[in-house]
Amino acid sequence: MRCGERLLVRPRMMWRVLALLLVGVVFTTQAAAADPLPSWHDSPARTAILEFVERTTTPGSPDFLEPAARIAVFDNDGTLWPETPLPFQAQFVLDELERLQGDHPEWKENPAITAALAGDVASVLRSGPGQGAMLLEATHAGMTVDDFQSRVRRWLDTARHPDHGRPYSDLAYQPMLEVLDLLRDHGFTPFIVSGGGADFMRVWAEEVYGIPPSQVIGSYGKVRYELRNDRPLLIKEGGIELIDDREGKPVGIHRFIGRRPVACFGNSDGDQAMLEWTTIEHEPSFGLIVHHTDAVRESAYDSDPKGTGKLVTALEAAPRRGWVVVDMARDWKVVFKPLEGAPQR
Amino acid sequence: MRCGERLLVRPRMMWRVLALLLVGVVFTTQAAAADPLPSWHDSPARTAILEFVERTTTPGSPDFLEPAARIAVFDNDGTLWPETPLPFQAQFVLDELERLQGDHPEWKENPAITAALAGDVASVLRSGPGQGAMLLEATHAGMTVDDFQSRVRRWLDTARHPDHGRPYSDLAYQPMLEVLDLLRDHGFTPFIVSGGGADFMRVWAEEVYGIPPSQVIGSYGKVRYELRNDRPLLIKEGGIELIDDREGKPVGIHRFIGRRPVACFGNSDGDQAMLEWTTIEHEPSFGLIVHHTDAVRESAYDSDPKGTGKLVTALEAAPRRGWVVVDMARDWKVVFKPLEGAPQR
Repeated sequence: MRCGERLLVRPRMMWRVLALLLVGVVFTTQAAAADPLPSWHDSPARTAILEFVERTTTPGSPDFLEPAARIAVFDNDGTLWPETPLPFQAQFVLDELERLQGDHPEWKENPAITAALAGDVASVLRSGPGQGAMLLEATHAGMTVDDFQSRVRRWLDTARHPDHGRPYSDLAYQPMLEVLDLLRDHGFTPFIVSGGGADFMRVWAEEVYGIPPSQVIGSYGKVRYELRNDRPLLIKEGGIELIDDREGKPVGIHRFIGRRPVACFGNSDGDQAMLEWTTIEHEPSFGLIVHHTDAVRESAYDSDPKGTGKLVTALEAAPRRGWVVVDMARDWKVVFKPLEGAPQR
Repeated sequence: MRCGERLLVRPRMMWRVLALLLVGVVFTTQAAAADPLPSWHDSPARTAILEFVERTTTPGSPDFLEPAARIAVFDNDGTLWPETPLPFQAQFVLDELERLQGDHPEWKENPAITAALAGDVASVLRSGPGQGAMLLEATHAGMTVDDFQSRVRRWLDTARHPDHGRPYSDLAYQPMLEVLDLLRDHGFTPFIVSGGGADFMRVWAEEVYGIPPSQVIGSYGKVRYELRNDRPLLIKEGGIELIDDREGKPVGIHRFIGRRPVACFGNSDGDQAMLEWTTIEHEPSFGLIVHHTDAVRESAYDSDPKGTGKLVTALEAAPRRGWVVVDMARDWKVVFKPLEGAPQR
């Protein structure tokens, strides 16, 4: 072939072609050698994550999964960001009650709201549909979806976490952000499956985790569509349509995703049902529990009944189910996304 | 630059480089020239679709949309496939009642089921929560999601459309399949937003339309998670949690997608609310109504009260709202996906 002959007899041209090829090889090798989980200590959990991704995405592997099947679900509070001293949405409820109480003298007669304002917001929310619903009704209903989401955004812009002094949206766990990136880089689609409110999470999940609204599954209440003065509106009416927690999580996964995930990340008994749904009699699959063991950098809780994300039965089941347990203190080099110029902790 | 100099003084090498570039240009031009909507006659509707895609996806266009905003919603029955003589899911209900009635002597006492078996399934289903729910209860509940979806698959494999003699899953509208491909080729994400059952549609939507389960929004009932004999199960309990029709469509869109679509395709008054939600005070946006005008090849109905997808108020509103109306008889060269070896109609 004449073109090849010409190239072969021109060493300088040939060298340039080889150099270009070499650059390609070097770049590829560098990319392969870069540690995809730099905030993780070398640990069984880290190895298990990498090994699962490799065996499910390497062509020819007996456990290879088509990209459509690579669905990963993540709890949010306590798994992707903290839930202490209060779940962040409970803090939002409290801050909104304080901000708005001047306009609502009738709230003084409301036992749930007075208890929350007296500092008991978390236990009122946990108390169930009756009193908890009153707090949500006061702060999450009777407005358009747009108005509600503007309130969440204003809160994120102004509120600071009491222990860490940073905006709440700045407190994602760096090691988990790396897991999200690793999975996306290997063709997985991550979904959040959280007991938190969908309308609340969708305000910030894309900027904090890179997860778009349609991949954020959470609890939700009734919403009504209305054409008012020829303007289309969606109005939050309150009430609860799905509590996306415990047995509600596999239900939410089915309703929104429509197929079983192959990887599930949680931190509490509230995630046990979705860990089961992901992993039992379903191979290949992967379950992981973030165990909060780090009272110095973040918090330590499991069976402590004051712990928001109480972890008892899921931790007991983990060895039998093959779920990986992350020891936050031992396995994570850093907990939070580093701030520019600040020391990592 | 030495490399450039060497190339410039070697005409034959230069020619080869130019030839390669030329091939690239020719391929690109061929791709651009290929008609993306070959089953559409040159018509205002066809032009409007192409023009919307071009102005929202061409970098630098004042109407350019980021890919994340390129969300398109499609009604299913009557928009992507027929709904005559019965909506296909109503036919499934009837066929299941007939198949299973031998095992259910108690159905003889059920007025809804006896009316349906006497040939009135569509009006019983339309009659509302009471009697319609009895039919759904008998055919869509009391089994696992897996069992239900196996029944749908068996039905698709065996049932044939009474007018067209083809499997129901063979009756997608070819012009609409081309619209789906055109949108996907330009970075849009299509969602189905249908009054039909989500569990029913998710069985076949991926193979028929290329739309994965997580992008199929439909009506749904209660589902319960249970760990039975250490096996995780999702059980369809019946009841209706969301009727994804009329005002329920913007609610479903909000619940599942979490942002407003920019393009909406429907065929009946049941789609009017989502057409409004997509287009009013929301630019750039696009609304389209498939008007069934083709009694020869498919069916003709609008204000006919027997028509399943009754189209009155949405058709009246179309000019004022700027919604494009497709005249099926005039605008579509073919209606159905061609069968190999069969003449197109």
